[in-house]
This record gives sequence, structure tokens and C-alpha cells, in this order.
Amino acid sequence: MNEFLSTANEALEHSRVTINRYFRQRIEVKNKADESPVTIADQTTEAKMRAIISGRHPEHGILGEEHGMEQSDARFQWVIDPIDGTKSFISGMPTFGTLLGLTDHGSAMIGVIDMPILDERWIGVANQITTHNGQHCQTSNVRSLSKAILYCTEPDMFNCDQFKCFEKLTAKVQLRRFGGDCYNYGLLASGHIDLVVEGSLQYYDIMALIPVIEGAGGVITDWQGNSLNKNWDGLVIAAATPELHKEALDIMMKT
Amino acid sequence: MNEFLSTANEALEHSRVTINRYFRQRIEVKNKADESPVTIADQTTEAKMRAIISGRHPEHGILGEEHGMEQSDARFQWVIDPIDGTKSFISGMPTFGTLLGLTDHGSAMIGVIDMPILDERWIGVANQITTHNGQHCQTSNVRSLSKAILYCTEPDMFNCDQFKCFEKLTAKVQLRRFGGDCYNYGLLASGHIDLVVEGSLQYYDIMALIPVIEGAGGVITDWQGNSLNKNWDGLVIAAATPELHKEALDIMMKT
Repeated sequence: MNEFLSTANEALEHSRVTINRYFRQRIEVKNKADESPVTIADQTTEAKMRAIISGRHPEHGILGEEHGMEQSDARFQWVIDPIDGTKSFISGMPTFGTLLGLTDHGSAMIGVIDMPILDERWIGVANQITTHNGQHCQTSNVRSLSKAILYCTEPDMFNCDQFKCFEKLTAKVQLRRFGGDCYNYGLLASGHIDLVVEGSLQYYDIMALIPVIEGAGGVITDWQGNSLNKNWDGLVIAAATPELHKEALDIMMKT
Repeated sequence: MNEFLSTANEALEHSRVTINRYFRQRIEVKNKADESPVTIADQTTEAKMRAIISGRHPEHGILGEEHGMEQSDARFQWVIDPIDGTKSFISGMPTFGTLLGLTDHGSAMIGVIDMPILDERWIGVANQITTHNGQHCQTSNVRSLSKAILYCTEPDMFNCDQFKCFEKLTAKVQLRRFGGDCYNYGLLASGHIDLVVEGSLQYYDIMALIPVIEGAGGVITDWQGNSLNKNWDGLVIAAATPELHKEALDIMMKT
């Protein structure tokens, strides 16, 4: 495990250097087939991370947002989103992050949320307490929607029915805000916010989040309360406590 | 002018110290009469800034979000929003800022957007080039909506009719994102984003923005294209170029 964590930290030190070099430099933005934006910063960062990982663990698999899958039958699989929040990145807004996860037989064993500009890093390891910049962190003890702060990156993540469901939920919370990208899950793990509810996420967006949230005492599932896996529908709810998670699911299911 | 800028910088060094002491400390949040949140951090920060300003310029007026107006008949008036983005502040999200403006006979002569956690400061002075952390900055040269990145703090800033108008505009832009608070106007002044369109703003939210945006080459008005003043309707559009501003106003007026 320590060897794998050392690989993750080394990959993230390199990703920070690359991202810092391109941030706010007005680089070209292209649209991918799914219309999401991509830049040379996303591509170069992922390539550097892959080189470090495969250099240290040539037998491991790697799945990344920009450069696809290698060795899909390996027991250990690294999952990379080099810039989660490319829309923020191209806007000069430093709330984007780098996500790096490691799965063992498909189950998340390490997850890291790294904020290259804000200099914050959350590290989650299965069955261990999550750390934020090296210090243990934990979710808040908020158990009811009426006291909860809810974040979501953008309303455009939802289709029409999903948005109705989201609106029904957010009518019950103390505060609802948009923005944040993967940073929201870090703020949840550190107890600053209480709920994150999102849609249209991909496998590489969420594998790193699971150990971070669970190791901080939170709950992360799809909107039916099921664990997240490769074939899920892209909808996520992460909550500070099981009670808050249940109250939110109950509201969303009453459609 | 240099004396006034020195006062502004001194007040902001003190506001940073106070805000950093309270950030992410889970302090109590109260709701004001207009249901916006307030904390001891907002109140203490404004009190410190007022003490510095009135100590150096006892003859000047001061208007602040939390502690009201003093000497409203003075020629020079300081305008303070100690934490613009209290909702972000209480969420541990560092995109909130401190706004400090100085008006001469009601016209904005100095404006500062200070980001206490992100360590960024934009300073605008009437008829001078805006600076970002001491370096000249300028808005982008984007002249058409189809190439524009638009930010808005939250959709809840608008009433129903205003939101329709906003949606009509944002359907034409390259990218629309929520979040950001006053940071959006700084990102606009530095050319990273191209449009900010907001509503429900107060006088103390915008006076500091005017010299920052105009000194960087941008345009900031209400939704009819009029200058912002004490009696305006709280709607703001800030654009990187006059051409982009005109195209946006044309779309919004076709209702």
C-alpha cells in the first residue's frame, strides 16, 4: 500500500508542475465528441501521470479520461482524470482538480483529490481515515436537510426529470450553491459542506472520490442508494452522514 | 490619490488577517432581515476596515454592508463589502472576496477586489490601467457571444422574468458557469472570462468593481446599458469589449 501511495504522490507532484505551467496561459480549447472541452494541459498531464505509473508498475492497468484504457485485465487498475473541471481551468478559476484512483479487482482502494493551484490534497485509502494535506479529516455531523449546505457543479449536469428531482431536494436544504467541480467532494470530506448531488459523471470522475468520502465518514452512492460501479447511470449523491443521505434519498424517490 | 491607495491597501492587509482567522472555523451563521447570511467574520472585518479608514481620514464618509453609513454628506465616501460571497465563505470555498471602493462626489475613483485566501488583489483607479497583484491587466478581446465565457454567481439572483432573459443570453455563449462571487469580475479584468451577468446586487457590491473593470478595458452597466448608481435596479452586465456588451444587450432587450 505504501508503495502505491508513493506512486500516487509522485504522479501528482508531476501533474501539478504541468498544470501550473498551462494555467491562465490562454491555450487552445478543443471540443471532444461529447462536446466537453479539452486542452493540451489535460492531455500532457495525463501522459506524464501514465508514464510515472507504468514505469513503476508495468503490470498494472491504467484508465484515463484522455488516453483510454491499457491492460484492462490487470488486477490493479489506476483511474485518472487529469483535470476534473476543464471548464473551470479554461476560465482561470482554480477550483478544478486532478483525480487519481487505484482499484483492486474493481474495488476502490486508493483515491486522491488534488488541487494543483489551491495546494490542497485529500487522500483516501480503504478502511483508513481520510487526510487533507496530511491531517485527518472528517465529514460534518449534519443529519437533516434543513441544516445542510448542498453543492453541485452545474444545473446543466441533469436532464429535465433529474433536474426536477434535484430541485425538489434542494428546496429542503439550508443553502444550495453551484460550482466547485471535484473540490466539492473535498470540502464535504473536511466537513465544510454536507451534500453533493450531481449527474452526468463518468467512471474516471468518481472512483477516486469513494475512498475519500467513505474514509471521512460520509456516504457516496447513486440516487437509488446503490454503490457506484462501471455500469452506473452517472448520478451521484454524497452525504456527510447516513441519516442525511437517507433523508435526501427519501425526498428524491417520492416522484 | 497615493495616500488613498495606501489607506485601501492597509485596510485590506488587516481584513485578510481577520478573514483568515475565521475561515473554515465553523463559526455561527445568522440570517439577516433579507435572509442573507452573516457571521462574526463579516462584522469584525468591516469594523477593522472602518477603524483604519476613519483613523486616517476622519472627514470621509463610510458605507458598509454590515454597519451602515457614516457622514453621508462627505465628498469622499468609502464603500465596504467585507465578505462578498458569505455563502462561499461559510462553505469553506475560497472564491469570496473583500470589496473596497472610494467615491468622489458619488463617482467611483478607486476600487479593489481582494481575495484573502487566494492571495490575489485587483486595484482599479479611474483613468488608470487596472492591476492584478501589481501587474497591469486587461480584458480579453472577445467580441462575439459565440466565443464568450459567461459567469454568474447563482441562478437564484434573478426573478422569473430576469431569469428568462438571462437564459436567452446564455443560450448564445460558448460556455456558461455558475459560482465565483466577486472573483468573476477579477477574472474578467484579467481576460480569463468574457462576461459576467448578475442580479440582486447592492450598491456596496458594485462600486469597487467599476474602476477595476473600466481600467482593464471592459464595460460595466445595468441591463439597459446605463451607468450604475445608488438608485439602480441591482442588475449588472460586465463585458470584456464594447462589441460584446452591445451584442449581449441587444439579445436581452428583445423580449
